[in-house]
Parts: sequence; structure tokens; C-alpha cells
Amino acid sequence: MSSFSTKIKENFQDYLTELSDLLAIPSVSADPQFSKSVHQCAHTVADLLRKSSLNHVELLETPGYPVVYGEKYVDESYPTILVYGHYDVQPADPIELWHQDPFNPVIKEGKIYARGAADDKGQFFLHIKALALVIQANKLKYNIKVIIEGEEEVGSKNLEAFALQYKEKLKADFILISDTSMIANEHPSITTGLRGLCYMEVEVIGPNRDLHSGVYGGAVANPINELCKMIAKLQDEEGKILIPGFYDQVAEVSESERARMAQAPFSIEDYKNHLDIEEVFGEKDYSVLERVSIRPTIDVNGIWGGYIGEGAKTVLPSKANAKISMRLVPNQNFLDIEKIFEDYFKSIAPKSVKVKVNAHHGGHPAVTSITSESYQIAEKAVEKSYGKKPIPLRTGGSIPIVSMFKSVLGIDTVLLGFGLDSDAIHSPNEHFGLFNIEKGIETLCYLYAKED
Amino acid sequence: MSSFSTKIKENFQDYLTELSDLLAIPSVSADPQFSKSVHQCAHTVADLLRKSSLNHVELLETPGYPVVYGEKYVDESYPTILVYGHYDVQPADPIELWHQDPFNPVIKEGKIYARGAADDKGQFFLHIKALALVIQANKLKYNIKVIIEGEEEVGSKNLEAFALQYKEKLKADFILISDTSMIANEHPSITTGLRGLCYMEVEVIGPNRDLHSGVYGGAVANPINELCKMIAKLQDEEGKILIPGFYDQVAEVSESERARMAQAPFSIEDYKNHLDIEEVFGEKDYSVLERVSIRPTIDVNGIWGGYIGEGAKTVLPSKANAKISMRLVPNQNFLDIEKIFEDYFKSIAPKSVKVKVNAHHGGHPAVTSITSESYQIAEKAVEKSYGKKPIPLRTGGSIPIVSMFKSVLGIDTVLLGFGLDSDAIHSPNEHFGLFNIEKGIETLCYLYAKED
Repeated sequence: MSSFSTKIKENFQDYLTELSDLLAIPSVSADPQFSKSVHQCAHTVADLLRKSSLNHVELLETPGYPVVYGEKYVDESYPTILVYGHYDVQPADPIELWHQDPFNPVIKEGKIYARGAADDKGQFFLHIKALALVIQANKLKYNIKVIIEGEEEVGSKNLEAFALQYKEKLKADFILISDTSMIANEHPSITTGLRGLCYMEVEVIGPNRDLHSGVYGGAVANPINELCKMIAKLQDEEGKILIPGFYDQVAEVSESERARMAQAPFSIEDYKNHLDIEEVFGEKDYSVLERVSIRPTIDVNGIWGGYIGEGAKTVLPSKANAKISMRLVPNQNFLDIEKIFEDYFKSIAPKSVKVKVNAHHGGHPAVTSITSESYQIAEKAVEKSYGKKPIPLRTGGSIPIVSMFKSVLGIDTVLLGFGLDSDAIHSPNEHFGLFNIEKGIETLCYLYAKED
Repeated sequence: MSSFSTKIKENFQDYLTELSDLLAIPSVSADPQFSKSVHQCAHTVADLLRKSSLNHVELLETPGYPVVYGEKYVDESYPTILVYGHYDVQPADPIELWHQDPFNPVIKEGKIYARGAADDKGQFFLHIKALALVIQANKLKYNIKVIIEGEEEVGSKNLEAFALQYKEKLKADFILISDTSMIANEHPSITTGLRGLCYMEVEVIGPNRDLHSGVYGGAVANPINELCKMIAKLQDEEGKILIPGFYDQVAEVSESERARMAQAPFSIEDYKNHLDIEEVFGEKDYSVLERVSIRPTIDVNGIWGGYIGEGAKTVLPSKANAKISMRLVPNQNFLDIEKIFEDYFKSIAPKSVKVKVNAHHGGHPAVTSITSESYQIAEKAVEKSYGKKPIPLRTGGSIPIVSMFKSVLGIDTVLLGFGLDSDAIHSPNEHFGLFNIEKGIETLCYLYAKED
């Protein structure tokens, strides 16, 4: 057992206490009513950085929530790593499906449950603790810069301007982000590809007020009926997207890469059982793992209209709304997709309704190289702690900042995440495994420290 | 000016005060949190009946809300009229679109605004006041029985058993209901046909929890996407319903009746302007008035699923729901339609989701005769007060109890309503015209009273 491993075990209860305190702050960036908590969370993160012996800790203001900055300069000859994380979290809705208060962390069955446990508070916390141990042991072999932002869950809308403003301050050899998952605890992996995101909100408007469906039904277009018909024209039964031009820029993945992906351990029966579904869904010429990684998709993330209370109300509503997002793959450009979505969606609206289309934040897809020095540094650290070489894996989520950092700062990112797909991020009962916390800190100690 | 007309003008401010007090009671039967108010409203209605010199006023209990009963027996040789109304109201949602508290009545621009103003508190109130005047003048030429129920807006679910239980007590020559509209104040009409109603609620269930759309999107069926695709298969672009067998029992209306309907005053430009729509909707071989009266239709009355808060949440939700209702015409049977809807809806669900289908209350369509004595009594009263013979009109709403009264009690109904389609019943800012209140009471005085 390494000395780091021993230290981690000794400190583990303290880590859980500190992490629980961090998770107890409802730093929901999407909802203005949590604004005070988001600011409070930034201060708590700054305190954690200071406690880990990072220097020049400060809150860098943006037009939105501040970015927490800290650094540890060791030696000019050392490479510099820029660590990125985010202290904001997704809304906890639907609250009623949580088995606990989402902001009152509970530890049970080897996991810590709370909103943000894995996405991303629990994960950037691993870096803070690993850095503390490595600095304490006087073994740090990189210069370190840390930025923890507060707007990732609302599209990091101020981060590009921030990166431009602080381009000099953020100079680094590579960026390290822990905000992704591994295949399984016994199958460590490093994320080498992320999908992009195009997130639209639509409103279909019918009559100027809610009507009685008996008096007007049949002669006045019902905005919900029409919205559903329009959504049905976005995707066929097999998941193929019907927006003209949508696939034009999609890069086909080579047969050799697909063959390598096919070797990742995966049981379709376990997958279906775990989700309690009878059949998976999606494009017929692609495997499940391919459908969620190398293929674009479209999901209605929310829909509402008319009467949604108890019982029956015979209303023909004035309008209906939906939030619709698309996951994008190289080389799709989210700005182009926003445009063709809007054009198509308006083109399929009947004349009997009006349509509004707005874009929320978007992000470009990203693929990282497995032959870079930075990837190999991460690979080596994982192999040392997990006893196995990690599998390089393209996954389905989006971290739009990866391509933004590349274009603005010119720096490549390594996505070394310690979560699992089953962590229920963005869902009720989000959690993070204690095993993953321990292994995460250990892996990062090996990554940051000189060898004995 | 008749003596009734003079009396009505003298008493008018008192009427408005009494009606306002009645409208101030939030007797929303669909929502259990208003239960106390619904009961309170029954007592208030009973007090109003007593005040109008009706006898044997009592609350007849049901498994739900009570039916308020009152009667005035004059002479065995006189025909008996059973007056029906309902004291419960629709929910006031969406509250934010009201220009006032829906239960704090406001009188402005010649109308009284409140939930229930026209549907149906304001309308049964006309009978109570007309009866008071006619009884006071000692001119009543019918024996009168009044029942005002409290569950019409939730499908009158206990009324059939009630009618069976009190079959003897409710014996009458005809039933008189004011719960419908006229074409316009200058074009009085009597409703001779009502559509039936089949009201379904569906749930489409995907994975056993909300998922991250990035991690699972493309391989797991999204219940909202699938619900929309299924709803799109219920109705074509022109409003034709695609459920197999749906039109099998639809009675085609004769060319002569369609020709008579075509003579009702109607401006499509006014209709579109009033609703602020560019185009009307519906089956191409039928006029607007036909689409809302002699043709069945399908409307999604409510839909919900996923994240509906501010901003963007990339969730692939566990389920999606909709309330879907169909208006039926003679000779469709709502129980048959419930069955074929459920069969079809389940048949179009992909294997990747589960589907639940439940029926809310339904009702059979009804057509009343214009050659009956009861119709002619009503026609004569309208002609006397409005100075014009009323147009017989089939309309789009549903009053399922009409066919129930016919089958259980064997009694025909006359639908003599005084509202307007523009009264915004079931919508924000429901109202009832002061003109309509005055003319309604006057018409009913002529109907109930011996001629001078």
C-alpha cells in the first residue's frame, strides 16, 4: 500500500464530512431563487482551496457567478496543469422522487447521496484533496492552476469571455477535468470523446386564450395536438433525425475505432434490467454504446401545456411548450444546427398556429487524442491505482467547454472522470461511490506526485 | 314593458349582490382542497331556493357532493318541470391569466367576471330569481322541482345512481337546463344537440428513473418523444381521427339540416379575429359550425413531462402524461370509444415503453326534438322576451346528463341557455353579460307564468 493510499484511508472520514458540507449548499445555477447559495458555495470552495495550501485563491467575477481560482507554483521548469471543475449543480426536480432531501447528504450502502455528489462537487473535490496530500508530502511535480466555475449547468455562458480575459493567467500545458464516468469500477476508462449540445425551447401558440374544447374543438387548432405532430416529425421510429441537413457534417467513425469500441464490456440484458425497459431504442445499424457516443440524437427534455392538475378539464389551451435538445458529434456545429432546427420547425407548423423558437446554451462536440503526452500521464496514474490500463472511451454527454478551451486558450483537455453512469446525475438520488472517491484521490495523487 | 320586466329592473342591484356572493365561493369540485367550499356552496344555494319561496328545500346526500333540492307544488292538473343546474365550477387555472381574483367577482363593461359566472352559477340563478317573481305574482303555471348538483365538472359521477334512487321524487314532464349558449344576443337560439365526451388520461413510461440525456440519449426511448409520436397518430393534419372504427357509428346529418345550419349567422373573419388566429382548422368537407357540432373531434387537454422549469435541464425523463378527450356525436357510445381508444393507443406504443390508459368520466351525445311541446314552450318564451324566434342549434359542448336523464328517468330535456360562446367558460376571465342576466330572468318569467 502506498503512503498516499494510507493517508487517504486515515483522512477518509474528514473527507466525507467536508464533502457533505459542500453538498449541503443548494448551488442550483438554473434557478434565480438559489442565487445566494450559489455565491455562498463559491466562498466555501475558495476556503477548501486555501486549506489545501493553494495560493492566490480568489473569486474572479463574471457577469454571472464567480469563478474560484487558486494555484500552486513550484518551478518554472515544470509543466503546468489547469484543473477545471464546477461548483453549481442541476435543479433537484422532481423532488418527490428523492428518498431524502437532495441537499442533506446521506451516506449509505457505500455511496454518498446528494445533488451534485458526482456532478461535479464530488469530483473536483478529489483534486483538492489529492493536491493537499501531494503538496504536504512536498512531491508536486507540476505547477497547478485550478478554476472552479459556477455556471456549467446553465451552459458556462460567461466562461468564454472569462477565458479570453484571463488568457495569460490560465496558460497551461494541458487541462484536467473530472466530470465524466468510467465504464465500471472494475473496468476503468478515460473519456476521449464528448457529444456537443444544441438545446432549443419552442412555443406553439393557438388562440389568444384558453378555450372550451367542446365549443371550439374541431375548428380551432389545438397547440398541444400540433406541437406533438411537429415533434413527431423530428425523429422517425428508429431514432433517425428528420431535420433536413442534420447529418451533413456528421463524421463517420472508422471501422477500426468501431471495432475497438465493440470490445468494451457491455451486457444489453444488464442494461435493460438496470433501467427496467423491455427494449432499447435507436438507430438500427449502430450498437447501444455507439448510439450514445458516436451518433447524434434528439430528446424532448420537457413538455407542458393545458390542464395538468387532478381530474378532467376540457380546455383547448392557448399554447404548448417544449424543451428539445440534440446531442451532436464531430463535426457538427451547434450554431448551424440551431439554425436548421429553427427553419425546419417553423416550416412544419400549420398556418393555424404561430411558433416561437429560442436557443438555450449550446456546445461543440470534442474528441481528444490518446497518443498525447497528457493522455498518457492520466493513463499511467489510473493503471497504478486500479491495477488495469484504462479503456479509451467516447461517451454521450456534453462538456462544451472542452472545445471552447481548445479554441480560445489553445489547450487540450484530458477527461479523467471517476463517476459511473449509474450515479444518477441530473436525476433524483444522485450519488457518488465511496470506492470512487478513494480511488479518485489515489489516482490523482499518483498523477500529481513525483515517484518515490 | 311587462310587469316582470319592471320588477327585474327594480331588483337588479340586489340580484348582482346575491350572485356575487354565490360566485365568491370557490366550489371547485375537481380539486379536493376546495372540498369545504363546495359543501358551503350547497348550503348557500339551499338558502337561495328557500328565499325564492320554494318548499321542502334540502340537501340530498350522495357519495360525493350533495344535490340541492327544492320544489313548488301548485296543482295536480299542472305539468311539472324539473330544473337542473350545477353549483360546482371548473378549476381557475391558469390563475396568472386572470385580470382579477377568479373568486372575487368584478362587474365591469356590462359583465360580471368570476369563475362560474356563466357556467353554471349565473345561469341556474336566473331560474331561482324568475321563480321568485312568478311565485310572488301568484302566476306559476307549472309544478316545479329544482335540483342543483355539485359534481357536473367532474362528470356528474354520482348523478345516475341519484336519479335511480329518487326516480319517483324527480318525476316531471320535461327537464329544463340553462347551461349552454346562444349564437349572439341579437340572434337568440336554443340548443338542440350536444356532443358526447370521452376523456382519457395516458401515461407513457420509459426507464425506471429520469436519466441524463447525454449518457442515455439515442439508446433509451424518451417517453416524451414517444408520447408525441403516438399523439400524432391520433389525428391527421386536417383533424380526421385515425383510431380504427372511430367513425363507424357516426350519424351523418341530412343535407336539409346542414342547409338550415348554414343559415345561422356566422363570419369566419370575425371568428378568426376574435381568437387571433390566422387560419381555422378541421375537416375539409365541413364548415366551422359543423366541425364544432355535428362532427366528433379529439383534443389534448393537457400534457406534461420532464423538466418544465426555467433554463435547460438535459433530462431524459422516466415518463410523460397527457389528458386527451374526444367529443362525440350521435350515435357514438362513449364506452365503445374508450375501448377502441385504449386498444389503439396501446397498439401504437413501441416496445421500448410501457403505456397506461385510464378513462375519466364520459357522456353520450344528445339531440333534442324541435317539434316537442316542451321545445315550443321555450321557443315561445324566448320570442316574447327577445322579440325574435330562436334558432334551433346543435352545439359542441357536452352535458352527458341529458342522455342519462332520458335513459334513467325517461324525461326529455330542453336546453335553454343564456350565455355566449365568448363568455370564456373553462378559461381565465370567465364572465356573464348583465344583458343576458336580465333577458334570462325575463324569458324564464314568461316561461313559468300564466299569461296576463
